[in-house]
Amino acid sequence: MTKLPKKELFHIPDGVLYLDGNSLGPLPRSVPGRVAEVLQAEWGEQLIRAWNKAGWMALPGRVGDRIAPLIGASPGSVMAGDTLSIKVWQALAAALKLRPERRVILSDTGNFPSDLYMANALAGLAGGGREVKLAAPEEVAAAISDEVAAVLLTEVDYRTGRRHDMFEITKAAQAAGAVMIWDLAHSAGAVPLDLAGSGCEFAVGCTYKYLNGGPGAPAFIYIRPDLISEAEPALAGWMGHADPFEMATDYRPAPSIERMRVGTPPIVQMAMLDAALDAWQGVDLTELRAASIRLSELFIAEVEKRCPQLELFSPRDPDSRGSQVSFRFEAGYQAMQALVAKGVIGDFRPPDVMRFGFTPLYLDEGDILAAVAILEEVMTDELWRDPAYQTRARVT
Amino acid sequence: MTKLPKKELFHIPDGVLYLDGNSLGPLPRSVPGRVAEVLQAEWGEQLIRAWNKAGWMALPGRVGDRIAPLIGASPGSVMAGDTLSIKVWQALAAALKLRPERRVILSDTGNFPSDLYMANALAGLAGGGREVKLAAPEEVAAAISDEVAAVLLTEVDYRTGRRHDMFEITKAAQAAGAVMIWDLAHSAGAVPLDLAGSGCEFAVGCTYKYLNGGPGAPAFIYIRPDLISEAEPALAGWMGHADPFEMATDYRPAPSIERMRVGTPPIVQMAMLDAALDAWQGVDLTELRAASIRLSELFIAEVEKRCPQLELFSPRDPDSRGSQVSFRFEAGYQAMQALVAKGVIGDFRPPDVMRFGFTPLYLDEGDILAAVAILEEVMTDELWRDPAYQTRARVT
Repeated sequence: MTKLPKKELFHIPDGVLYLDGNSLGPLPRSVPGRVAEVLQAEWGEQLIRAWNKAGWMALPGRVGDRIAPLIGASPGSVMAGDTLSIKVWQALAAALKLRPERRVILSDTGNFPSDLYMANALAGLAGGGREVKLAAPEEVAAAISDEVAAVLLTEVDYRTGRRHDMFEITKAAQAAGAVMIWDLAHSAGAVPLDLAGSGCEFAVGCTYKYLNGGPGAPAFIYIRPDLISEAEPALAGWMGHADPFEMATDYRPAPSIERMRVGTPPIVQMAMLDAALDAWQGVDLTELRAASIRLSELFIAEVEKRCPQLELFSPRDPDSRGSQVSFRFEAGYQAMQALVAKGVIGDFRPPDVMRFGFTPLYLDEGDILAAVAILEEVMTDELWRDPAYQTRARVT
Repeated sequence: MTKLPKKELFHIPDGVLYLDGNSLGPLPRSVPGRVAEVLQAEWGEQLIRAWNKAGWMALPGRVGDRIAPLIGASPGSVMAGDTLSIKVWQALAAALKLRPERRVILSDTGNFPSDLYMANALAGLAGGGREVKLAAPEEVAAAISDEVAAVLLTEVDYRTGRRHDMFEITKAAQAAGAVMIWDLAHSAGAVPLDLAGSGCEFAVGCTYKYLNGGPGAPAFIYIRPDLISEAEPALAGWMGHADPFEMATDYRPAPSIERMRVGTPPIVQMAMLDAALDAWQGVDLTELRAASIRLSELFIAEVEKRCPQLELFSPRDPDSRGSQVSFRFEAGYQAMQALVAKGVIGDFRPPDVMRFGFTPLYLDEGDILAAVAILEEVMTDELWRDPAYQTRARVT
């Protein structure tokens, strides 16, 4: 019954051990052929007619429906499009409309910066004394007061890998009368999710990490089905209109999740994501999660044994982590450069965090052991002292 | 010196006369190879490292700088990204911040619906009694009062093809103390533009029409250089931060036009647009415009002679038109379906408008004469009465 690993579905370059699928998933082998078809047979041959004939118009909803089972959502509750920052804005703006009398957006200090930037910008634009308050991740549930309009949290912390308890916090938010918004950037495709069961009002996420949709792949937004018809799209673009091609002067949102569409969708990237999602056919997310824990536990044990210079930054309890493991090291930036130069790709997050992602679709225990052996060499031989790795460039 | 036509740079299917490049430009032959390279050599081989090594991080600004000369803007004043609706929102939100004491957004009844929807949604969110007022296109200059914060107009009307006088209206807006925003959806790549000379504060546009960037290609935003450092991005995503990879909790906008970036850019569609822009090398926009007028004048003359059922809807004076011509016909929807079935592709806009675009990069006088001959056949033989064309589907 287990279908793991699906390694052969992905292109992993020779000599590379890729522990950064939590940042940008690798190229699924199904993507280039699909893209060539969209370019040549659809755009090239059908031209404008492809919006209907090739199903371009319906593609964002179709892709949303394929993401839905991966996050525990029902068909018709997920729409793909835009970027995660835009979808955060839409979810949060809709939440504020649902709680007009409340002034506080609550988030945590571990949230991804873009979520906080968007929340602050929205609070400023909406005015009325609205403000963003931040609590420490461990204290966020206790900080939900009856002033809070919306709780906006990323389920898995991008730096530490720490995972919130989605059910508990959603319950606490709703008990206080707040709207719950989950950012699933580091969750979708990494851990089993039950959005419907959690009862949360909104969720958003990106698809270029564990879902392997490619660089700048479309984001997604989820709305709890009973709320769709009252959720204001905020960014009221024509594609979310009930009948875009009526071209009416007045906006009338689509009755369905289609209302969260904004402008003309990026069809090629949407098709890439659609093709990338093929890899999930037959994947049992509970088995995937068990494999992820096996890989990350092995990694932690080996690193702690062989690289005593590194200090575990992620929670030790696998149930409290997502699918990444972070270690702190003073020269972490330089050490990551040295490691990448030797073919082991992870990434670095300020101030001193070396981050490694575990993606059992294309990683196995042999990869982990090989990666740790190289990491040990980098640390023991202090390869990170090489002058080539001292200059700080922008690294994603 | 003339480099027109550049027809061989585009793929036009056999048997097709494409008069809809004003809606979706055809596939440039340079695009599939570039996309294959981005997928295989960049994403596939470099993985996350491609953000720096393959120049992905800088691509939106580089593409913006390639659009700049086509719209009369200087390098560093144009940024590519997101969709046109999002860029309208950003420009308008920044304009409202520049005129906090004023309450009115002025547009015209011919503006594209999405611009009006976004303007209304923004006015509602910003509150403070802000509202959108609409004037008839001919009366918009006279309607600019000292209550107006921003004038938001699409230079070329998507239905009629009527073209505003950019210099005159910008002058009128600024004389009244309002901020001027031009939407160049139907202008960029169609008519010579001198944004810098006009002095307008903001402009936005899309690239999948005359610029041939492909379905859902990224949009762009222009800010007058002296205003960049005070223009608030509104949608304050991390990619517009002065140092995104500092991952600071507080937002600090980039000092440059980079501040108008929002989320992670769609790299494949950005590269497609970059490749599509190659077609503009050596194109003199004044010559292109002259060719467009020759083609559209020929089309009007022939249609009026041979299809008396159709009534010209666009301005008769070519200087008052963009690069499209619209005719009204009661059964325009059905007639356009019949025409498309015979290989002449234009499009339909409610309530009864048959729309034809003139794109001298890949259309010549022979194409125009051949298209009119088929249109004459559709009209004379009343092919539009065929039951197959009576059902109204969504058509872009």
